Amino acid sequence: MDIVLLGSGNVATHLGHALRGAQHRIVQVYSPTETHAKTLADQLAAEVVTDVSSVTADAAVYLIAIKDEAIEEVASRLPEGLPGIVAHTAGSVDQAILASYVARYGVIYPVQTFSKAKEVDFSSVPLAIEASDKRTYEELARLAGTLSTRVFACGSIQRLALHVAAVFACNFTNHLYAIGADILKAQGLDFELIRPLILETAEKAMKHQPKDVQTGPAIRNDQRTIQKHLAFLATNTDREALYALVSRLISG
Amino acid sequence: MDIVLLGSGNVATHLGHALRGAQHRIVQVYSPTETHAKTLADQLAAEVVTDVSSVTADAAVYLIAIKDEAIEEVASRLPEGLPGIVAHTAGSVDQAILASYVARYGVIYPVQTFSKAKEVDFSSVPLAIEASDKRTYEELARLAGTLSTRVFACGSIQRLALHVAAVFACNFTNHLYAIGADILKAQGLDFELIRPLILETAEKAMKHQPKDVQTGPAIRNDQRTIQKHLAFLATNTDREALYALVSRLISG
Repeated sequence: MDIVLLGSGNVATHLGHALRGAQHRIVQVYSPTETHAKTLADQLAAEVVTDVSSVTADAAVYLIAIKDEAIEEVASRLPEGLPGIVAHTAGSVDQAILASYVARYGVIYPVQTFSKAKEVDFSSVPLAIEASDKRTYEELARLAGTLSTRVFACGSIQRLALHVAAVFACNFTNHLYAIGADILKAQGLDFELIRPLILETAEKAMKHQPKDVQTGPAIRNDQRTIQKHLAFLATNTDREALYALVSRLISG
Repeated sequence: MDIVLLGSGNVATHLGHALRGAQHRIVQVYSPTETHAKTLADQLAAEVVTDVSSVTADAAVYLIAIKDEAIEEVASRLPEGLPGIVAHTAGSVDQAILASYVARYGVIYPVQTFSKAKEVDFSSVPLAIEASDKRTYEELARLAGTLSTRVFACGSIQRLALHVAAVFACNFTNHLYAIGADILKAQGLDFELIRPLILETAEKAMKHQPKDVQTGPAIRNDQRTIQKHLAFLATNTDREALYALVSRLISG
Protein backbone atom coordinates (compact mmCIF):
# COMPACT_ATOMS: atom_id res chain seq x y z
CA MET A 1 0.00 0.00 0.00
CA ASP A 2 0.97 3.63 -0.48
CA ILE A 3 1.12 5.28 2.92
CA VAL A 4 1.59 8.83 4.17
CA LEU A 5 3.13 8.98 7.63
CA LEU A 6 2.22 12.06 9.65
CA GLY A 7 4.69 12.29 12.52
CA SER A 8 8.38 11.64 13.14
CA GLY A 9 8.59 10.60 16.80
CA ASN A 10 9.12 7.17 18.34
CA VAL A 11 5.82 5.61 17.24
CA ALA A 12 6.07 7.06 13.70
CA THR A 13 9.67 5.85 13.41
CA HIS A 14 9.03 2.28 14.57
CA LEU A 15 5.82 2.06 12.55
CA GLY A 16 7.48 3.48 9.44
CA HIS A 17 10.27 0.92 9.55
CA ALA A 18 7.81 -1.92 10.17
CA LEU A 19 5.66 -0.81 7.22
CA ARG A 20 8.64 -0.56 4.92
CA GLY A 21 9.84 -3.96 6.16
CA ALA A 22 6.43 -5.34 5.12
CA GLN A 23 6.93 -4.00 1.56
CA HIS A 24 4.63 -1.00 1.81
CA ARG A 25 5.66 2.27 0.22
CA ILE A 26 5.93 5.27 2.52
CA VAL A 27 5.32 8.01 -0.03
CA GLN A 28 5.60 10.98 2.32
CA VAL A 29 6.64 11.79 5.89
CA TYR A 30 5.12 14.90 7.43
CA SER A 31 6.54 16.89 10.32
CA PRO A 32 6.25 20.63 10.94
CA THR A 33 9.99 20.52 11.68
CA GLU A 34 11.78 19.86 8.40
CA THR A 35 14.90 18.27 9.92
CA HIS A 36 12.75 15.78 11.85
CA ALA A 37 10.74 14.89 8.75
CA LYS A 38 13.91 14.59 6.69
CA THR A 39 15.68 12.22 9.10
CA LEU A 40 12.83 9.73 9.00
CA ALA A 41 11.95 10.32 5.33
CA ASP A 42 15.53 9.53 4.33
CA GLN A 43 15.44 6.25 6.24
CA LEU A 44 12.16 5.32 4.55
CA ALA A 45 12.98 6.65 1.06
CA ALA A 46 10.00 8.99 1.34
CA GLU A 47 9.32 12.59 0.37
CA VAL A 48 9.42 15.31 3.04
CA VAL A 49 6.27 17.34 3.72
CA THR A 50 6.17 20.21 6.20
CA ASP A 51 2.68 21.49 5.37
CA VAL A 52 -0.18 19.04 6.01
CA SER A 53 -2.41 20.59 3.34
CA SER A 54 0.10 19.67 0.64
CA VAL A 55 0.16 15.89 1.23
CA THR A 56 -0.68 13.73 -1.76
CA ALA A 57 -4.36 12.84 -2.29
CA ASP A 58 -3.44 9.45 -3.76
CA ALA A 59 -2.32 7.44 -0.74
CA ALA A 60 -4.34 4.48 0.51
CA VAL A 61 -3.72 5.26 4.19
CA TYR A 62 -2.70 8.35 6.16
CA LEU A 63 -1.28 7.39 9.53
CA ILE A 64 -1.27 10.14 12.17
CA ALA A 65 1.36 9.16 14.76
CA ILE A 66 1.86 12.36 16.74
CA LYS A 67 1.11 13.56 20.26
CA ASP A 68 -2.56 13.26 21.20
CA GLU A 69 -3.38 16.93 21.48
CA ALA A 70 -2.17 17.65 17.92
CA ILE A 71 -4.13 14.89 16.15
CA GLU A 72 -7.31 16.82 15.49
CA GLU A 73 -5.50 19.90 14.21
CA VAL A 74 -3.43 17.85 11.76
CA ALA A 75 -6.55 16.00 10.58
CA SER A 76 -8.35 19.31 10.06
CA ARG A 77 -5.62 20.55 7.74
CA LEU A 78 -5.59 17.49 5.45
CA PRO A 79 -6.78 18.09 1.87
CA GLU A 80 -10.57 17.89 1.67
CA GLY A 81 -12.31 14.84 0.25
CA LEU A 82 -9.44 12.35 0.57
CA PRO A 83 -10.53 8.94 -0.80
CA GLY A 84 -8.01 7.12 1.43
CA ILE A 85 -8.27 6.11 5.09
CA VAL A 86 -7.05 8.42 7.86
CA ALA A 87 -6.06 6.57 11.04
CA HIS A 88 -4.40 7.71 14.25
CA THR A 89 -2.33 5.54 16.58
CA ALA A 90 -3.28 6.89 20.01
CA GLY A 91 -4.59 4.93 22.98
CA SER A 92 -6.78 7.56 24.57
CA VAL A 93 -8.22 9.52 21.63
CA ASP A 94 -11.70 8.69 20.32
CA GLN A 95 -11.77 7.90 16.61
CA ALA A 96 -14.75 10.27 16.28
CA ILE A 97 -12.45 13.30 16.36
CA LEU A 98 -11.51 12.41 12.76
CA ALA A 99 -15.13 12.24 11.56
CA SER A 100 -15.47 15.90 10.56
CA TYR A 101 -12.47 15.82 8.24
CA VAL A 102 -12.60 12.61 6.24
CA ALA A 103 -15.14 9.97 5.19
CA ARG A 104 -13.16 6.88 6.09
CA TYR A 105 -11.20 6.87 9.31
CA GLY A 106 -10.04 4.67 12.15
CA VAL A 107 -7.33 3.71 14.61
CA ILE A 108 -4.34 1.38 14.67
CA TYR A 109 -3.13 1.43 18.28
CA PRO A 110 0.09 -0.52 18.91
CA VAL A 111 0.13 -1.85 22.49
CA GLN A 112 3.83 -1.41 23.07
CA THR A 113 6.31 1.16 24.33
CA PHE A 114 8.70 2.55 21.77
CA SER A 115 11.93 4.39 22.38
CA LYS A 116 14.82 5.38 20.19
CA ALA A 117 17.07 3.34 22.48
CA LYS A 118 15.73 -0.08 21.54
CA GLU A 119 14.43 -1.98 18.53
CA VAL A 120 11.10 -3.77 18.82
CA ASP A 121 9.94 -6.93 17.09
CA PHE A 122 6.77 -5.51 15.56
CA SER A 123 5.40 -8.91 14.59
CA SER A 124 4.41 -9.65 18.19
CA VAL A 125 3.00 -6.21 19.01
CA PRO A 126 -0.77 -6.37 19.60
CA LEU A 127 -2.50 -3.92 17.23
CA ALA A 128 -5.93 -2.65 18.31
CA ILE A 129 -8.12 -1.70 15.35
CA GLU A 130 -11.22 0.47 15.16
CA ALA A 131 -12.80 2.05 12.10
CA SER A 132 -15.64 4.18 10.84
CA ASP A 133 -17.25 1.33 8.87
CA LYS A 134 -16.84 -2.35 8.08
CA ARG A 135 -14.96 -1.95 4.82
CA THR A 136 -12.52 0.51 6.37
CA TYR A 137 -12.05 -1.84 9.35
CA GLU A 138 -11.21 -4.67 7.01
CA GLU A 139 -8.65 -2.62 5.11
CA LEU A 140 -6.97 -1.37 8.29
CA ALA A 141 -6.98 -4.88 9.77
CA ARG A 142 -5.44 -6.22 6.57
CA LEU A 143 -2.72 -3.57 6.67
CA ALA A 144 -2.11 -4.26 10.38
CA GLY A 145 -1.96 -7.98 9.62
CA THR A 146 1.07 -7.41 7.39
CA LEU A 147 2.90 -5.96 10.42
CA SER A 148 1.82 -8.18 13.31
CA THR A 149 0.28 -11.55 14.01
CA ARG A 150 -1.82 -10.04 16.80
CA VAL A 151 -4.51 -7.83 15.30
CA PHE A 152 -7.83 -7.38 17.08
CA ALA A 153 -11.00 -5.27 17.05
CA CYS A 154 -11.13 -2.80 19.91
CA GLY A 155 -13.71 -0.08 20.62
CA SER A 156 -12.73 3.36 21.91
CA ILE A 157 -13.57 2.57 25.57
CA GLN A 158 -11.73 -0.74 25.42
CA ARG A 159 -8.78 1.07 23.89
CA LEU A 160 -8.82 3.64 26.68
CA ALA A 161 -8.84 0.77 29.22
CA LEU A 162 -5.92 -0.80 27.39
CA HIS A 163 -4.01 2.46 27.54
CA VAL A 164 -4.71 2.95 31.27
CA ALA A 165 -3.65 -0.66 31.94
CA ALA A 166 -0.48 -0.04 29.94
CA VAL A 167 0.30 3.11 31.93
CA PHE A 168 0.10 1.11 35.18
CA ALA A 169 1.98 -1.95 33.91
CA CYS A 170 4.64 -0.12 31.90
CA ASN A 171 5.04 3.61 32.59
CA PHE A 172 4.38 3.38 36.32
CA THR A 173 6.37 0.18 36.62
CA ASN A 174 9.34 1.92 35.06
CA HIS A 175 9.00 4.67 37.64
CA LEU A 176 9.05 2.06 40.43
CA TYR A 177 12.30 0.78 38.92
CA ALA A 178 13.58 4.38 39.03
CA ILE A 179 12.61 4.72 42.70
CA GLY A 180 14.44 1.47 43.42
CA ALA A 181 17.53 2.74 41.59
CA ASP A 182 17.41 5.99 43.53
CA ILE A 183 17.10 4.27 46.92
CA LEU A 184 20.08 2.06 46.09
CA LYS A 185 22.17 4.97 44.83
CA ALA A 186 21.66 6.86 48.11
CA GLN A 187 23.24 3.86 49.90
CA GLY A 188 26.11 3.49 47.44
CA LEU A 189 24.56 0.40 45.85
CA ASP A 190 24.29 -0.34 42.15
CA PHE A 191 20.97 -0.68 40.30
CA GLU A 192 22.49 -3.82 38.77
CA LEU A 193 21.74 -5.59 42.09
CA ILE A 194 17.99 -5.59 41.46
CA ARG A 195 18.04 -6.17 37.71
CA PRO A 196 17.69 -9.98 38.03
CA LEU A 197 14.72 -9.42 40.32
CA ILE A 198 13.07 -7.04 37.84
CA LEU A 199 13.48 -9.51 34.99
CA GLU A 200 12.26 -12.44 37.10
CA THR A 201 9.14 -10.49 38.11
CA ALA A 202 8.31 -9.70 34.48
CA GLU A 203 9.04 -13.24 33.30
CA LYS A 204 6.77 -14.65 35.99
CA ALA A 205 3.95 -12.48 34.63
CA MET A 206 4.44 -14.05 31.18
CA LYS A 207 3.11 -17.37 32.46
CA HIS A 208 0.93 -16.50 35.43
CA GLN A 209 -1.77 -14.10 36.44
CA PRO A 210 0.06 -11.47 38.54
CA LYS A 211 -2.31 -11.72 41.48
CA ASP A 212 -1.51 -15.44 41.78
CA VAL A 213 2.24 -14.86 42.17
CA GLN A 214 2.31 -11.79 44.42
CA THR A 215 5.17 -11.89 46.94
CA GLY A 216 6.57 -9.50 49.55
CA PRO A 217 5.72 -8.11 53.00
CA ALA A 218 2.28 -6.72 52.05
CA ILE A 219 0.75 -9.98 50.78
CA ARG A 220 1.99 -11.72 53.97
CA ASN A 221 0.59 -8.78 55.94
CA ASP A 222 4.03 -8.61 57.60
CA GLN A 223 3.38 -5.38 59.50
CA ARG A 224 6.74 -5.40 61.27
CA THR A 225 8.64 -5.24 57.97
CA ILE A 226 6.17 -2.76 56.48
CA GLN A 227 6.71 -0.44 59.47
CA LYS A 228 10.51 -0.75 59.13
CA HIS A 229 10.24 0.18 55.48
CA LEU A 230 7.94 3.13 56.15
CA ALA A 231 10.38 4.38 58.81
CA PHE A 232 13.23 4.03 56.29
CA LEU A 233 11.23 6.11 53.78
CA ALA A 234 10.07 8.73 56.29
CA THR A 235 12.35 11.46 54.91
CA ASN A 236 10.45 11.28 51.60
CA THR A 237 6.75 11.71 52.31
CA ASP A 238 5.64 10.99 48.73
CA ARG A 239 7.45 7.66 48.66
CA GLU A 240 6.22 6.85 52.14
CA ALA A 241 2.63 7.55 51.00
CA LEU A 242 3.15 5.48 47.84
CA TYR A 243 4.55 2.56 49.87
CA ALA A 244 1.62 2.72 52.31
CA LEU A 245 -1.01 2.94 49.55
CA VAL A 246 0.31 0.08 47.41
CA SER A 247 0.86 -2.12 50.49
CA ARG A 248 -2.72 -1.51 51.52
CA LEU A 249 -3.98 -2.35 48.02
CA ILE A 250 -1.95 -5.59 48.00
CA SER A 251 -2.94 -6.76 51.47
CA GLY A 252 -6.53 -5.50 51.18
CA MET B 1 29.97 -28.00 54.05
CA ASP B 2 27.49 -29.61 56.42
CA ILE B 3 24.47 -27.37 56.65
CA VAL B 4 21.30 -27.31 58.75
CA LEU B 5 18.41 -25.62 56.99
CA LEU B 6 15.84 -24.04 59.31
CA GLY B 7 12.73 -23.39 57.26
CA SER B 8 10.77 -25.06 54.47
CA GLY B 9 9.21 -22.19 52.51
CA ASN B 10 10.16 -20.72 49.13
CA VAL B 11 13.54 -19.29 50.14
CA ALA B 12 14.53 -22.42 52.10
CA THR B 13 13.48 -24.63 49.19
CA HIS B 14 15.37 -22.73 46.49
CA LEU B 15 18.40 -22.28 48.74
CA GLY B 16 18.40 -25.94 49.76
CA HIS B 17 18.41 -27.11 46.16
CA ALA B 18 21.13 -24.63 45.20
CA LEU B 19 23.30 -25.78 48.14
CA ARG B 20 22.84 -29.42 47.27
CA GLY B 21 23.59 -28.62 43.63
CA ALA B 22 26.88 -27.07 44.81
CA GLN B 23 27.80 -30.36 46.58
CA HIS B 24 27.04 -29.26 50.11
CA ARG B 25 25.38 -31.69 52.47
CA ILE B 26 22.06 -30.61 53.97
CA VAL B 27 22.18 -32.68 57.15
CA GLN B 28 18.85 -31.57 58.61
CA VAL B 29 15.75 -29.61 57.63
CA TYR B 30 13.77 -28.02 60.45
CA SER B 31 10.13 -27.00 60.34
CA PRO B 32 7.64 -27.00 63.20
CA THR B 33 5.24 -28.69 60.76
CA GLU B 34 6.54 -32.22 60.18
CA THR B 35 4.96 -32.69 56.72
CA HIS B 36 6.57 -29.45 55.48
CA ALA B 37 9.98 -30.45 56.85
CA LYS B 38 9.62 -33.93 55.37
CA THR B 39 8.75 -32.75 51.85
CA LEU B 40 11.88 -30.63 51.60
CA ALA B 41 14.10 -33.03 53.61
CA ASP B 42 13.21 -35.86 51.22
CA GLN B 43 14.19 -33.74 48.21
CA LEU B 44 17.51 -32.88 49.86
CA ALA B 45 18.23 -36.31 51.40
CA ALA B 46 18.25 -34.67 54.82
CA GLU B 47 16.95 -35.62 58.26
CA VAL B 48 13.70 -34.12 59.54
CA VAL B 49 13.77 -32.01 62.72
CA THR B 50 10.65 -30.52 64.27
CA ASP B 51 12.21 -29.26 67.49
CA VAL B 52 14.92 -26.59 67.08
CA SER B 53 16.68 -27.53 70.30
CA SER B 54 17.44 -30.99 68.93
CA VAL B 55 19.41 -29.94 65.83
CA THR B 56 22.90 -31.33 65.49
CA ALA B 57 25.73 -29.34 67.07
CA ASP B 58 28.17 -30.44 64.35
CA ALA B 59 27.08 -28.45 61.31
CA ALA B 60 29.30 -25.74 59.85
CA VAL B 61 26.36 -23.42 59.04
CA TYR B 62 22.78 -23.07 60.28
CA LEU B 63 20.68 -21.17 57.76
CA ILE B 64 17.48 -19.63 59.14
CA ALA B 65 15.19 -19.07 56.12
CA ILE B 66 11.81 -18.40 57.72
CA LYS B 67 9.48 -15.44 58.09
CA ASP B 68 11.13 -12.42 59.70
CA GLU B 69 9.15 -12.35 62.92
CA ALA B 70 10.07 -15.96 63.79
CA ILE B 71 13.85 -15.64 63.29
CA GLU B 72 14.76 -14.55 66.80
CA GLU B 73 12.61 -17.17 68.47
CA VAL B 74 14.14 -19.96 66.39
CA ALA B 75 17.66 -18.63 67.11
CA SER B 76 16.86 -18.50 70.82
CA ARG B 77 15.96 -22.19 70.87
CA LEU B 78 19.13 -23.43 69.15
CA PRO B 79 21.44 -25.57 71.31
CA GLU B 80 23.74 -23.38 73.40
CA GLY B 81 27.37 -22.86 72.47
CA LEU B 82 27.18 -23.94 68.82
CA PRO B 83 30.63 -23.72 67.21
CA GLY B 84 29.12 -23.24 63.72
CA ILE B 85 27.81 -20.08 62.06
CA VAL B 86 24.13 -19.11 62.36
CA ALA B 87 22.93 -16.94 59.46
CA HIS B 88 19.49 -15.68 58.48
CA THR B 89 18.39 -14.78 54.95
CA ALA B 90 16.11 -11.79 55.57
CA GLY B 91 16.33 -8.36 53.97
CA SER B 92 15.00 -6.25 56.81
CA VAL B 93 16.25 -7.97 59.98
CA ASP B 94 19.39 -6.71 61.71
CA GLN B 95 22.03 -9.39 62.18
CA ALA B 96 22.38 -8.23 65.82
CA ILE B 97 19.21 -10.11 66.79
CA LEU B 98 21.31 -13.30 66.59
CA ALA B 99 24.07 -11.97 68.89
CA SER B 100 22.55 -13.18 72.16
CA TYR B 101 22.29 -16.77 71.04
CA VAL B 102 25.50 -17.68 69.22
CA ALA B 103 29.09 -16.47 68.96
CA ARG B 104 29.40 -16.44 65.19
CA TYR B 105 26.50 -15.17 63.14
CA GLY B 106 25.63 -13.33 59.97
CA VAL B 107 23.35 -12.90 56.98
CA ILE B 108 23.12 -14.29 53.47
CA TYR B 109 20.38 -12.26 51.78
CA PRO B 110 19.48 -13.41 48.26
CA VAL B 111 18.23 -10.45 46.21
CA GLN B 112 15.62 -12.36 44.25
CA THR B 113 11.97 -13.34 44.44
CA PHE B 114 11.28 -17.03 44.87
CA SER B 115 8.03 -18.84 44.25
CA LYS B 116 7.10 -22.48 43.98
CA ALA B 117 5.83 -21.75 40.47
CA LYS B 118 9.21 -21.06 38.87
CA GLU B 119 12.81 -22.24 39.01
CA VAL B 120 15.55 -19.67 39.46
CA ASP B 121 19.12 -19.75 38.19
CA PHE B 122 20.83 -19.22 41.53
CA SER B 123 24.24 -18.54 39.97
CA SER B 124 23.17 -15.02 38.96
CA VAL B 125 21.34 -14.13 42.19
CA PRO B 126 23.15 -11.34 44.06
CA LEU B 127 23.94 -12.52 47.61
CA ALA B 128 24.39 -9.81 50.24
CA ILE B 129 26.68 -10.92 53.08
CA GLU B 130 27.14 -9.53 56.57
CA ALA B 131 28.76 -11.21 59.55
CA SER B 132 29.71 -10.81 63.20
CA ASP B 133 33.45 -10.84 62.49
CA LYS B 134 35.96 -11.05 59.66
CA ARG B 135 36.55 -14.80 59.81
CA THR B 136 32.81 -15.51 59.84
CA TYR B 137 32.32 -13.10 56.94
CA GLU B 138 34.94 -14.93 54.93
CA GLU B 139 33.36 -18.31 55.58
CA LEU B 140 29.88 -17.11 54.66
CA ALA B 141 31.20 -15.36 51.55
CA ARG B 142 33.03 -18.54 50.55
CA LEU B 143 29.85 -20.59 51.00
CA ALA B 144 27.83 -17.97 49.06
CA GLY B 145 30.47 -18.00 46.33
CA THR B 146 29.75 -21.68 45.67
CA LEU B 147 26.14 -20.72 44.85
CA SER B 148 26.44 -17.45 42.96
CA THR B 149 28.96 -15.37 41.05
CA ARG B 150 27.58 -12.19 42.62
CA VAL B 151 28.53 -12.10 46.30
CA PHE B 152 29.05 -8.76 48.04
CA ALA B 153 29.47 -7.22 51.51
CA CYS B 154 26.39 -5.36 52.66
CA GLY B 155 25.71 -3.70 56.03
CA SER B 156 22.33 -3.89 57.74
CA ILE B 157 21.19 -0.42 56.58
CA GLN B 158 22.30 -1.09 53.02
CA ARG B 159 20.47 -4.40 53.15
CA LEU B 160 17.32 -2.66 54.36
CA ALA B 161 17.64 -0.21 51.45
CA LEU B 162 18.07 -3.13 49.07
CA HIS B 163 14.94 -4.75 50.45
CA VAL B 164 12.89 -1.54 50.17
CA ALA B 165 14.14 -1.04 46.60
CA ALA B 166 13.19 -4.64 45.82
CA VAL B 167 9.69 -4.13 47.23
CA PHE B 168 9.17 -1.16 44.88
CA ALA B 169 10.76 -2.76 41.83
CA CYS B 170 9.34 -6.26 42.28
CA ASN B 171 6.44 -6.63 44.71
CA PHE B 172 4.80 -3.30 43.85
CA THR B 173 5.52 -3.75 40.16
CA ASN B 174 3.73 -7.08 40.25
CA HIS B 175 0.75 -5.36 41.83
CA LEU B 176 0.73 -2.80 39.01
CA TYR B 177 0.62 -5.74 36.58
CA ALA B 178 -2.35 -7.06 38.59
CA ILE B 179 -4.13 -3.70 38.37
CA GLY B 180 -3.54 -3.72 34.61
CA ALA B 181 -4.95 -7.24 34.34
CA ASP B 182 -7.99 -6.24 36.36
CA ILE B 183 -8.71 -3.14 34.25
CA LEU B 184 -8.49 -5.23 31.08
CA LYS B 185 -10.69 -8.00 32.48
CA ALA B 186 -13.45 -5.49 33.29
CA GLN B 187 -13.50 -4.57 29.57
CA GLY B 188 -13.41 -8.17 28.35
CA LEU B 189 -9.77 -7.88 27.30
CA ASP B 190 -7.05 -10.44 27.95
CA PHE B 191 -3.97 -9.76 30.10
CA GLU B 192 -1.99 -11.33 27.26
CA LEU B 193 -2.39 -8.02 25.38
CA ILE B 194 0.00 -6.18 27.69
CA ARG B 195 2.48 -8.99 28.28
CA PRO B 196 4.83 -7.87 25.46
CA LEU B 197 4.79 -4.37 26.95
CA ILE B 198 5.63 -5.68 30.42
CA LEU B 199 8.56 -7.69 29.10
CA GLU B 200 9.82 -4.82 26.94
CA THR B 201 9.73 -2.45 29.93
CA ALA B 202 11.77 -4.88 32.07
CA GLU B 203 14.23 -5.61 29.25
CA LYS B 204 14.79 -1.91 28.70
CA ALA B 205 15.76 -1.60 32.38
CA MET B 206 18.43 -4.27 31.87
CA LYS B 207 20.48 -1.90 29.72
CA HIS B 208 19.41 1.58 30.79
CA GLN B 209 18.82 3.61 33.91
CA PRO B 210 15.01 3.63 34.28
CA LYS B 211 14.76 7.40 34.61
CA ASP B 212 16.44 7.78 31.20
CA VAL B 213 13.82 5.67 29.39
CA GLN B 214 10.61 6.83 31.07
CA THR B 215 7.68 7.02 28.64
CA GLY B 216 3.96 7.75 28.94
CA PRO B 217 1.60 10.68 29.52
CA ALA B 218 3.14 11.82 32.82
CA ILE B 219 6.70 12.36 31.55
CA ARG B 220 5.28 14.34 28.59
CA ASN B 221 3.09 16.21 31.10
CA ASP B 222 0.18 15.35 28.80
CA GLN B 223 -2.54 16.64 31.12
CA ARG B 224 -5.36 15.94 28.68
CA THR B 225 -4.59 12.21 28.65
CA ILE B 226 -3.94 12.15 32.39
CA GLN B 227 -7.36 13.71 33.02
CA LYS B 228 -9.05 11.17 30.70
CA HIS B 229 -7.38 8.36 32.62
CA LEU B 230 -8.33 9.78 36.01
CA ALA B 231 -11.94 10.09 34.82
CA PHE B 232 -11.82 6.47 33.64
CA LEU B 233 -10.58 5.41 37.10
CA ALA B 234 -12.99 7.61 39.05
CA THR B 235 -15.12 4.67 40.24
CA ASN B 236 -12.09 3.32 42.13
CA THR B 237 -10.75 6.07 44.38
CA ASP B 238 -7.66 4.13 45.47
CA ARG B 239 -6.55 3.55 41.89
CA GLU B 240 -7.38 7.12 40.98
CA ALA B 241 -5.21 8.32 43.90
CA LEU B 242 -2.41 5.94 42.91
CA TYR B 243 -2.54 7.14 39.29
CA ALA B 244 -2.44 10.79 40.38
CA LEU B 245 0.42 10.25 42.85
CA VAL B 246 2.69 8.29 40.49
CA SER B 247 1.98 10.70 37.61
CA ARG B 248 2.97 13.60 39.83
CA LEU B 249 6.17 11.81 40.90
CA ILE B 250 7.07 11.12 37.25
CA SER B 251 6.33 14.61 35.92
CA GLY B 252 7.70 16.38 39.01
